[in-house]
Amino acid sequence: MSKQDLRELEESIGYSFTNKGLLSEAITHKSFHHENPAKAPFHNERLEFLGDSVLGLTMVKFLYKSEKNYSESTMSKIKSYLVKESVLSDIAEGISLGRFLRLGKGEEETGGRSKKSILSDALEAVFGAVYIDGGYECAERTILGLFRNKIEAATISEQFFDFKTEFQEESQMRFGVLPDYITVKQEGEEHKKIFTVDVFIKGERCGSGVGRSKKEAETLAAREALAKMKNKI
Amino acid sequence: MSKQDLRELEESIGYSFTNKGLLSEAITHKSFHHENPAKAPFHNERLEFLGDSVLGLTMVKFLYKSEKNYSESTMSKIKSYLVKESVLSDIAEGISLGRFLRLGKGEEETGGRSKKSILSDALEAVFGAVYIDGGYECAERTILGLFRNKIEAATISEQFFDFKTEFQEESQMRFGVLPDYITVKQEGEEHKKIFTVDVFIKGERCGSGVGRSKKEAETLAAREALAKMKNKI
Repeated sequence: MSKQDLRELEESIGYSFTNKGLLSEAITHKSFHHENPAKAPFHNERLEFLGDSVLGLTMVKFLYKSEKNYSESTMSKIKSYLVKESVLSDIAEGISLGRFLRLGKGEEETGGRSKKSILSDALEAVFGAVYIDGGYECAERTILGLFRNKIEAATISEQFFDFKTEFQEESQMRFGVLPDYITVKQEGEEHKKIFTVDVFIKGERCGSGVGRSKKEAETLAAREALAKMKNKI
Repeated sequence: MSKQDLRELEESIGYSFTNKGLLSEAITHKSFHHENPAKAPFHNERLEFLGDSVLGLTMVKFLYKSEKNYSESTMSKIKSYLVKESVLSDIAEGISLGRFLRLGKGEEETGGRSKKSILSDALEAVFGAVYIDGGYECAERTILGLFRNKIEAATISEQFFDFKTEFQEESQMRFGVLPDYITVKQEGEEHKKIFTVDVFIKGERCGSGVGRSKKEAETLAAREALAKMKNKI
């Protein structure tokens, strides 16, 4: 990799390496190493294994510290989403990581440069390399910088949460009963209706939601009830 | 938990908390929290989830940095062993963690204080608490302190490695052939025999081992060959 390439890659990662060899190792696929053992004495599998753990801790700590006070099961759901191969390869594509990869001829010919698995593995290896080069805080900062949009999407969007299930579990555990959802209002024309749903536990109203479908209104009611419940205790 | 208890627990963990509430949360089982929400507003599941990740990274980094230059698959094997419930609960027992747990009545009556799952979860929660209280380096130091013997056992003992399989994979990948093992010497009386085995790739001797069984000698030969191979490239 040329010095110019190295600098470009460092810039898009947002971290400048003291030991440039580590970055070079991180982008070396084993196919390249096997073909050129003298030129590439290492490949990125060890760094990838390390990076996977660094990434995991960074995500979990971020979620733990969030003011939303996520339960263990919600943290687990969001984390699983964020470390998925498709999310990682998206981020890798965003920094054009494929362009910098050192691949063997076979991989090159079969489109390895844009394979999701190779891209996501290399990205994890880059995180491992930053960790070894600069320590945990640097790795955390680098990862959070690259994941900013993905984290935002995962924590804002409701598609990653199943508030109704979570609230049902909480309700059953704490009070031994399931919550009841009651549609208290339907407004607007057909196909443009707005629903208001209240949720009750043992006859006590504990949340309310407004949405374009009963399901959406129920989900929002469960979310409100969950938030109240967690603030109370 | 009394101040005296807290101090004792901190001493056996090897870490003194700035925020003692975190340690208290780490040893609070959800059964206690459900029975006493006012006294125990939190239970240890969130910290446990965090601690699991801190523990994982600590182990992988330790193995990565080891002079033995473990492959990704060997790191993965040793790590899986080290974070097993039985290993964690052993360590928890070693610091008498069960004595300090805050358990609900039901759990108390059914022997929860010595349940492996409760003990190992609480130990992970303690690691999460140290991480939040003192940062990553403190957590790493604390974990390595408590795991010293277990790590030593896992990395010295051969029961956790399958050098023959690893060498076979390497040999096939690099040279496209399987290694050959040849017993070159047998000494001593029946039942006290000592075997010497050499291992060859394409007729070239690449390792040798001496053991009380052919299997042991072969394993040691594979280990030597692997070490040589890794130093060469």
